[in-house]
Amino acid sequence: MVARGKSILKDLEKDVVAINNALTANLQTHVPLIAEVGRHILLSGGKRIRPLLFILSARMCGCQGNHLNGFSTIFEYLHAATLLHDDVIDTASVRRGASTANTIWGNQAVILVGDFLLAKALSLAVTTNKLQVLQVLSQATTMMAEGEILQLLHAGNLKITEAEYFEVITRKTAILMSAACQIGAILGGVPAESEEALSQMGLNLGITFQVVDDILDYTGDERELGKEVCADLREGRVTLPLIHALAQASPVDRERLAAIAQALTPELAPELRSLIDKYGSLDYARTVARDYTLKAQENLKTFPASLEKTYFGAITEELLARTH
Amino acid sequence: MVARGKSILKDLEKDVVAINNALTANLQTHVPLIAEVGRHILLSGGKRIRPLLFILSARMCGCQGNHLNGFSTIFEYLHAATLLHDDVIDTASVRRGASTANTIWGNQAVILVGDFLLAKALSLAVTTNKLQVLQVLSQATTMMAEGEILQLLHAGNLKITEAEYFEVITRKTAILMSAACQIGAILGGVPAESEEALSQMGLNLGITFQVVDDILDYTGDERELGKEVCADLREGRVTLPLIHALAQASPVDRERLAAIAQALTPELAPELRSLIDKYGSLDYARTVARDYTLKAQENLKTFPASLEKTYFGAITEELLARTH
Repeated sequence: MVARGKSILKDLEKDVVAINNALTANLQTHVPLIAEVGRHILLSGGKRIRPLLFILSARMCGCQGNHLNGFSTIFEYLHAATLLHDDVIDTASVRRGASTANTIWGNQAVILVGDFLLAKALSLAVTTNKLQVLQVLSQATTMMAEGEILQLLHAGNLKITEAEYFEVITRKTAILMSAACQIGAILGGVPAESEEALSQMGLNLGITFQVVDDILDYTGDERELGKEVCADLREGRVTLPLIHALAQASPVDRERLAAIAQALTPELAPELRSLIDKYGSLDYARTVARDYTLKAQENLKTFPASLEKTYFGAITEELLARTH
Repeated sequence: MVARGKSILKDLEKDVVAINNALTANLQTHVPLIAEVGRHILLSGGKRIRPLLFILSARMCGCQGNHLNGFSTIFEYLHAATLLHDDVIDTASVRRGASTANTIWGNQAVILVGDFLLAKALSLAVTTNKLQVLQVLSQATTMMAEGEILQLLHAGNLKITEAEYFEVITRKTAILMSAACQIGAILGGVPAESEEALSQMGLNLGITFQVVDDILDYTGDERELGKEVCADLREGRVTLPLIHALAQASPVDRERLAAIAQALTPELAPELRSLIDKYGSLDYARTVARDYTLKAQENLKTFPASLEKTYFGAITEELLARTH
């Protein structure tokens, strides 16, 4: 059992070190700038959630071995590719407390290194020698791009519905975590139902992850988050807490919420937060996140007890409880 | 035999229509903006060279059927993805005589639709059910990204060597044409030597294509090209004619060439062209292109006579002789 209050990620530190080594090793290219930008985005932090989900899923399904570290980089490279393109799109200057790659190397190089990492991820997936892995991964990549475009189309849209919000976060975030878990299961060669259960677990866990992220944008500590609060809203992303508050608010409060959301300044942030609090919208979002955590844990039920299953249970709790 | 003076592409018009239909059909997505941007970049012209190379290669290798049209879109989608990202990177406003997608929909949407098309291409490649197809394609995609980054790194570099130039154009242009031919061969299930010969043919043909493109940037008709002359140089791309002229020029002329290249205006373009002519640099580049055409034709030698082989021979000639 994992001790309460102790981060599960501590227990997996050895795996994280192995993942980090593989991330550097697989970044071999004869174009030094690619490795440089790649290292910047890959090694400037990050919890390696996606590679860990893959490794744990594969192990739980009976696939062991150090080769998993190499394959696990597929998911971090894909993730890093979307981060690089996101930063260009958001014209972001800070991520995880550090300068974004685009401010250092310019948008041009960053777009192209994103393309490189995406292509590299798919090249590495080919080395699993399983067509089904490529099927899941290329479909996930397609859906991720659709999710990012949907998010862009909804930028500044105060009329976005909860259903539309969930569609965006499922595609832009949850699909890749789902793919990491499912591909672990595919390597383990488990029956279709188990593969599907792990795919679903990854999806539910990914939704939890994003909803919590969106809550933290309102409640988090700037230093811990490594970015400004309400940064999402300032970039036009209307997320669950605000969607809920807008739906529940009195006409007067709704008008005020909309006015603040459209022209948010640091001075207005406290008023925005207190309005969102007034309608219990953060608690509502927390309940939603908790529901998806429970769904993820439900997806694990049919698997026999194992160390990996325990880790998965602890990770679901930790993703729900995280503060940054 | 193909009649002299008549475009080989006329003979393949039925195939081009089928390719265009497949390009639209495969662009099904529930995000209308993707289809809109996709149609803009895909249906605003283009000779469908890459899909045709694939289809002809597959047929010559004994793989027939209408499903080839669908697979052929893989190569056009990948190409379109790089065009979209290129236009953002070059901040281009005109391509093929029409406004670029980024000026209509903005960089953000265009970067993401590029990502979508890249992912879509790999998803479609999975439907061939051949892991080797994915291997060739994902490696080609990785190398293309490297080529684009190398090109960016060499932007404005008047000291770029011929070898460096060939490395850039091989990766950014020839590799995808090579992959189209090789993947056609893989679907045909021919022996490894034939597959390799077609891969090499595509590579040599791709180098011809790019060298001719780079010549046309100096000599072409603006209206026919659908872009301004010397557009490449204005975007910092130092290509074969200028590389040759800089290497051959007298110290005085070299200095003048460099000065013009660094601050090119439409008024200086005629002087630039006459200096390049003075050192026979356009003829030199034409000879290089002709050499690669001959290599491509040599790669076809071991294949028995067939309609497709005739078409390939004519295409190599046409790519060499094209004026836009």
